Amino acid sequence: MRVTLLPLCLSLFALQSLAARPAAKPKSMQELLEASNPADWRTLDPRNTLYLDLAAGRVVIELAPDFAPAHVANIRTLAHEHYWDGLSINRSQDNFVVQWGDPEDDAAKRKSIGSAKAHLPAEFTRKSAGVSFVPLPDRDGWAPQVGFSQGFPAARSPKTGQAWLAHCYATVGAGRDTAADSSNGTELYVVDGQSPRQLDRNITVVGRVMQGMELLSVLPRGTGALGVYEKAEQRVPIKSLVLAADLPESQRTPLQVLRTDTPLFTALVEARRNRRDDWYKVPAGHIDLCNVPLPVRAPPK
Amino acid sequence: MRVTLLPLCLSLFALQSLAARPAAKPKSMQELLEASNPADWRTLDPRNTLYLDLAAGRVVIELAPDFAPAHVANIRTLAHEHYWDGLSINRSQDNFVVQWGDPEDDAAKRKSIGSAKAHLPAEFTRKSAGVSFVPLPDRDGWAPQVGFSQGFPAARSPKTGQAWLAHCYATVGAGRDTAADSSNGTELYVVDGQSPRQLDRNITVVGRVMQGMELLSVLPRGTGALGVYEKAEQRVPIKSLVLAADLPESQRTPLQVLRTDTPLFTALVEARRNRRDDWYKVPAGHIDLCNVPLPVRAPPK
Repeated sequence: MRVTLLPLCLSLFALQSLAARPAAKPKSMQELLEASNPADWRTLDPRNTLYLDLAAGRVVIELAPDFAPAHVANIRTLAHEHYWDGLSINRSQDNFVVQWGDPEDDAAKRKSIGSAKAHLPAEFTRKSAGVSFVPLPDRDGWAPQVGFSQGFPAARSPKTGQAWLAHCYATVGAGRDTAADSSNGTELYVVDGQSPRQLDRNITVVGRVMQGMELLSVLPRGTGALGVYEKAEQRVPIKSLVLAADLPESQRTPLQVLRTDTPLFTALVEARRNRRDDWYKVPAGHIDLCNVPLPVRAPPK
Repeated sequence: MRVTLLPLCLSLFALQSLAARPAAKPKSMQELLEASNPADWRTLDPRNTLYLDLAAGRVVIELAPDFAPAHVANIRTLAHEHYWDGLSINRSQDNFVVQWGDPEDDAAKRKSIGSAKAHLPAEFTRKSAGVSFVPLPDRDGWAPQVGFSQGFPAARSPKTGQAWLAHCYATVGAGRDTAADSSNGTELYVVDGQSPRQLDRNITVVGRVMQGMELLSVLPRGTGALGVYEKAEQRVPIKSLVLAADLPESQRTPLQVLRTDTPLFTALVEARRNRRDDWYKVPAGHIDLCNVPLPVRAPPK
């Protein structure tokens, strides 16, 4: 079998002696990661980390309180009060999103949201002042400028002074009805297809799946409109959705994320913008915001 | 359950009387499709149509002989001689590709390719002269110009006079080793994640999945390097991979595809570039090549 659609030899590069390698050869992503320092990584804050536990395993989500403070506060309350435990994933639409929440159509029969708020403001954008932003030099069709804000793919407009999180693979948002302010964080979706950037500035992004995307992306597609599961037994039960901070440390999944505001990250983006290994014949000279890898790792022992 | 991350009311729009609708309101994609004429559609040519039959169902692939004539000719031969029947899907890498072919690592033990050619030229690009190209006005970071060529997402460079097919969701290509001319069409992959446009001009694209992507995109991700299934029993058996023209008509899946060189298609792209329904608050003003929907339908009776 030819598996070398991408080269298998990345790890071999790292074993070559530096002397044997031409001095000008840029490092690959793998080499850069192997040469990283502890300061190149950040540890997920348990107050901003959700665990979506399914029969298949754990999905780790990082919340974005700087972009959606009201939604994140509500999600923390909902998780703390076990709102989602026993509810289900109810929608899987191919090349778009997986969505979970209360499957009950009749509002009167829906699960109580406890002490969480029923209504929240729309948090589609925020002022770009006051939040870090590391711009990518690469042009983007959807926004005047794109880059990373605290590890999240983001965009901003110098003209309007607004910033917002971008819909890339693994972005988590709060489903809503037609009214802009009709989401309260109970209904969450995650992108698992081509980046639907048309949703940017139209819906509240609350975070990003950092680990376990493959547990969601393989779910059978629903055959109803918008990928909704038509039968109750097709829904995927949620064992629990909890805030890491609400769990004892022994039950947490410690995770480190590569920082996006470091020289190492800039070098990593360049290594992916222009691949210099033997497999690639034509370096692209460009990278899309949603093609930039955001590496995670277990904390080194 | 709030499923209206996207509006459920598309089909209702079409039921409104024209008189009741404000004259200036642009049509939605659904309305445009419902108003389409037979000439807006083309029927897949059985000589350019592959059926990948799995236990889960049929995947329909359209081949692109104008971009990869040598590969397509070889694939027709391989399919005609039942090369893939009994082989398997051997790789599923999250947010990247699914790949099938002969899982045997030992070249000496691989299945015979019969009368197909073992070596083919690389077909990464072609001359843009002589092939239709309907450009999108939207800017693209990866190529000077993008658009559609005979229904396929494509790109071209006026400077070099070259055109090529783009790696979008559902694009099918021919896996290769390090040498540019090391693919022969036996090993095929399909994109099922964020468009990996860095592969453009680096590998031979042979076609596109037109129906049945959801049978491939849900396959469990392989846990080996590059998403390869580590155990033989994890591989997904291929019942058969045949050219539609090699099957009696009763066993074919007739399929029509919306033409991409019509005023209707231009209107459809605009309807998706700037969504005007009540759900969207901020029309994007842009669409990415790989976000343009390419509708298919069963031929009307």
